[in-house]
Amino acid sequence: MIQLLILGLLLKYPNTHGYELMKIMDQRHYKYIVQYTKGSLYYNLQKMNEKGFLSGTLDSNDPEITYFSVTPKGEQLFSELMDKYGNISEYVNLSFYTPMLFNELIPEEHYHSYINSQISQIESKIVNLNHALEDVNTLDPKFRLMLENSREHHKVNLKWFKSLLY
Amino acid sequence: MIQLLILGLLLKYPNTHGYELMKIMDQRHYKYIVQYTKGSLYYNLQKMNEKGFLSGTLDSNDPEITYFSVTPKGEQLFSELMDKYGNISEYVNLSFYTPMLFNELIPEEHYHSYINSQISQIESKIVNLNHALEDVNTLDPKFRLMLENSREHHKVNLKWFKSLLY
Repeated sequence: MIQLLILGLLLKYPNTHGYELMKIMDQRHYKYIVQYTKGSLYYNLQKMNEKGFLSGTLDSNDPEITYFSVTPKGEQLFSELMDKYGNISEYVNLSFYTPMLFNELIPEEHYHSYINSQISQIESKIVNLNHALEDVNTLDPKFRLMLENSREHHKVNLKWFKSLLY
Repeated sequence: MIQLLILGLLLKYPNTHGYELMKIMDQRHYKYIVQYTKGSLYYNLQKMNEKGFLSGTLDSNDPEITYFSVTPKGEQLFSELMDKYGNISEYVNLSFYTPMLFNELIPEEHYHSYINSQISQIESKIVNLNHALEDVNTLDPKFRLMLENSREHHKVNLKWFKSLLY
């Protein structure tokens, strides 16, 4: 997924270096829709450069800075990954389902502490998403739709976990 | 996750062999809440046996059949995995979000075909979940709650993908 994100961003903004990409991703709150770290971004830029999906140009003043662009081979990969992730549809599963299957094997207060932990984590996720959604200036309308979809899912879960307490 | 499933099932049903476990998981529609294959089940039984989390007893008549139980070390792992997965809460992300970020870089008809593919896959998932939910005899009440939660998420997505078409 990070590879598709890198290719898409570099197609939109050719000749960009890693730090700038990271800044774009952070400013646009991409952490809410794709899992990435600074390490995975730099690692993948490096790998994709070695494999010929990207071409890198060193900064003439600072050899530690590389400007990346997408090669024709990278454009091909972009199309393939768009097709792949555009058509993937998974069952929605929570990590919590499996512990729930076996709750009778553990003390009831442990199980309740899991549920309470889930509820408070979901509540803070909804707060974070609301906060990101207020950031009208940097949000493109499509991204707003994604955050709203994500928030709907968390609301479904919040209601569901609360119902498990009774 | 498959490891927690194996440990929980073997704690409930000690001295069970791989084929029986698979049958239990299939009959109870666990595929809707955990990703597993026959290969991953047998591989993990083997690995967990080697690592001392399970103990295996060969069938006296058929040496190809091994009956597995959970060891004290396996009970410890069970507790740890219950704590781990009971407390994990992730942001809900669709694989579709990243292609959606870059839809202006591909032909519009491709993007629409993704959305239509998503809609038809979600519709068939809801049909499958409804079908599983009708299977009242084999469903324990907690599992029913999980399937209902999963179905709610798919309904949220169905509505959302349909809204993207307009």
